[in-house]
Amino acid sequence: MQAWRNPYAVSFAQAAAGFTAGKQTPRDFLERCIASIDEYESRVRAFVTLDLKAARKAADAAAQRWRSGRPLSPIDGCPVAIKDIMATADMPTQMGSPAFKDWQSGQDAACVHALRRGGAVIFNKTVTTEFAIGFSGPTTNPFDPARTPGGSSSGTAAAVGAGMLPVGLGTQTQGSTLRPASYCGAVGFKPTIHALNTAGIHPLSATCDHLGIIGATLDDVWLIAAQISLGIGSPGYGFLNGAAGALPVPVKPRRLVVLHTRGWKEIDARSRQAFDAALGAFAKSGIAITTVDHEPRVQAFEDALERDIDGALDIVAYEMQWPFRDYIARYGELIGTRIHGLIKRADTMMPADYSALLATRHAIRAHCRGLLAELDADAFVTLASSGPAPVGLKESGSRSFLTPGSWLGFPAFALPLLQGDGLPFGIQLLGADHRDGELCAAARWIMREYTSAV
Amino acid sequence: MQAWRNPYAVSFAQAAAGFTAGKQTPRDFLERCIASIDEYESRVRAFVTLDLKAARKAADAAAQRWRSGRPLSPIDGCPVAIKDIMATADMPTQMGSPAFKDWQSGQDAACVHALRRGGAVIFNKTVTTEFAIGFSGPTTNPFDPARTPGGSSSGTAAAVGAGMLPVGLGTQTQGSTLRPASYCGAVGFKPTIHALNTAGIHPLSATCDHLGIIGATLDDVWLIAAQISLGIGSPGYGFLNGAAGALPVPVKPRRLVVLHTRGWKEIDARSRQAFDAALGAFAKSGIAITTVDHEPRVQAFEDALERDIDGALDIVAYEMQWPFRDYIARYGELIGTRIHGLIKRADTMMPADYSALLATRHAIRAHCRGLLAELDADAFVTLASSGPAPVGLKESGSRSFLTPGSWLGFPAFALPLLQGDGLPFGIQLLGADHRDGELCAAARWIMREYTSAV
Repeated sequence: MQAWRNPYAVSFAQAAAGFTAGKQTPRDFLERCIASIDEYESRVRAFVTLDLKAARKAADAAAQRWRSGRPLSPIDGCPVAIKDIMATADMPTQMGSPAFKDWQSGQDAACVHALRRGGAVIFNKTVTTEFAIGFSGPTTNPFDPARTPGGSSSGTAAAVGAGMLPVGLGTQTQGSTLRPASYCGAVGFKPTIHALNTAGIHPLSATCDHLGIIGATLDDVWLIAAQISLGIGSPGYGFLNGAAGALPVPVKPRRLVVLHTRGWKEIDARSRQAFDAALGAFAKSGIAITTVDHEPRVQAFEDALERDIDGALDIVAYEMQWPFRDYIARYGELIGTRIHGLIKRADTMMPADYSALLATRHAIRAHCRGLLAELDADAFVTLASSGPAPVGLKESGSRSFLTPGSWLGFPAFALPLLQGDGLPFGIQLLGADHRDGELCAAARWIMREYTSAV
Repeated sequence: MQAWRNPYAVSFAQAAAGFTAGKQTPRDFLERCIASIDEYESRVRAFVTLDLKAARKAADAAAQRWRSGRPLSPIDGCPVAIKDIMATADMPTQMGSPAFKDWQSGQDAACVHALRRGGAVIFNKTVTTEFAIGFSGPTTNPFDPARTPGGSSSGTAAAVGAGMLPVGLGTQTQGSTLRPASYCGAVGFKPTIHALNTAGIHPLSATCDHLGIIGATLDDVWLIAAQISLGIGSPGYGFLNGAAGALPVPVKPRRLVVLHTRGWKEIDARSRQAFDAALGAFAKSGIAITTVDHEPRVQAFEDALERDIDGALDIVAYEMQWPFRDYIARYGELIGTRIHGLIKRADTMMPADYSALLATRHAIRAHCRGLLAELDADAFVTLASSGPAPVGLKESGSRSFLTPGSWLGFPAFALPLLQGDGLPFGIQLLGADHRDGELCAAARWIMREYTSAV
């Protein structure tokens, strides 16, 4: 496999090794990011708010701590992209919506708080589609300005893809972290549902909203996730599996199960070829690959997904009633048509319908968990998007490969290994719930094996 | 049993029968409430915000709907007390904290939204202790102004106890709904954890915060709970068991299990006598009463509670870190000492400690559920407070009888059947989780049998 490489990629973890040695400082690292912002932001349009003065001040404070040998955490001094649906005490939170123009939360979201505790440099807000589900923002794909960066975490993914930042925060309710990561040639991570704290993030759907991380390197992604977990915890879920201690040691997966999903019908011959080449390389490395062709239980699972997956969006629509029914009453046409449509969809649902959807979801989760165990597989492997980013900025691309993982609430990584037309797209690993650390170990092995970058 | 009766009690459900017949209107009902507010509020001090103009307008609109035979719900036109930690779009939400003086949420909490959808008259905010866990407000007990109304839902309980309103909203993280209900001679209901939507209510502890209802009559309490459930749902939990359709038909419990808890050591001889008399009356009615004396499995459960119950507050403290660590940094001494203490407690806890507490809680829930099933019992019966309201306004009374139910997250009712020194206090029924409707059926039977009022 000829793995794709992002020429812009910057790694905070790598730079931090230099902080300890005194060769460079977080301020040096920040200035390189700012130079990239100066160069690319006018084209990429990833940011809605930037406070460089605050950034330099925070980076200098971190430099002082590294110098004295007492960094607050491994990500002390790391500049992080913050999606603009996450509350920040010192910057507006505008939700990509004219209804929230200049709105001030007055406080930090739990994840932002946890990052600040670890010394992260919080100085920007990135473009989101409207409330992470409605119309798109102005951001362009860093590798082709005529193409979408993907949504809804458009700005974070594009900032990372363009090397303006090493890592940032997104969210995923249906596909909003892994899709833009895939299109922007970045690593995306969506943890087990609720494993990272979502308090202070504007809600769409309380049981489907995941906090996600997008970074140029897998290690930066994991270190940020670990800091959020250890810095604040997540109600009812203890902490992220694998977050304590050092980075998960790379472990070669024994077995991966190929999952097609509805997305399989959407991909072109070249994307399929790239995916097949990756599977071939995995097999050559000694990873067992199970496909639907030699395992009927995989087909049964695909059939169950196909039958019930539409219920995933029904759950989102039902849970969106609060606060969006009120927003529509108050803000009218300032709220986009897609959100109007989802609330109309919710209006046709009875409480008992919602209960039935929850029961179906509970069953598919058990089915999926059981299948991975029965097949003794580490994870499913599939695509993170149906090929490279499509042309056009109004639509943010298909979610077909991502809805299953979001509905299941199981951990998933997008790894930017593939390419088509010189543009990146990702492979997706989807593991069992509450085994995020083990999935990261497998992802690290793959990244090291095929790109030598983690 | 000589059941206590509240001379001030007002019933919306009873009045609504008159609306259908055209004998009176929601406006007439509201005016009687306003007359009581005029008479008692200067002494009781239940409210922080009152908008009588908005109330009259909403009541008139409801009257119009009843007249045309199309009320929005059974509680259309019902004036409801709203605890001042719940967001309201048209009134400030001040959290009982000087740090939130005049703060405007700009939107309705999910529960407030659901009540408005059902036509409820939303026109007031009631006194809460600071963030529902800190220092007490100015509210006095409606039956003796030298005594506490209980907390943290002080204003809602006192407004209901004084007959200023038929029903209102509270919350319970440790004991904040059932305790003030008990002290104020009202019915209190804390549903199964998460069964009612808590979005837009200021959080203390995401896995321990319950939305609770306090009313002069059980039926008003249940109708309000049902409307909140059917009007918005609760993420991940379908809807409240028993909420659909008519009020649960009264069913005589077959067996009640007496639970002592740590509170047993706190009660005086007269309170114990009153409780024993109630148990005697239940037994005489043919309800089997199981006590620790003839059932060692009850003692084993009491022992498990005693051993691990302190972990309940540790969970609250850990989850309070967000947003209270930030509040302390920003507002300093404007935040009360109890909250400072809880965050200090959280600072000593590691993520793994929190995980262990969650595992213990999971185990006690299974233990409790199993015990009720093994003994074929409808519910536990215990007290809702360790006697009548104590003298003094600074402290809001013991939570010892209530912490177990909050920790378990199982549904509980406080029924104002007992008295001491002419002051009311409640019996508590604590049932199995997700059986709220069945517990309500048992509670309705008891209220009908001993007070003829439901």
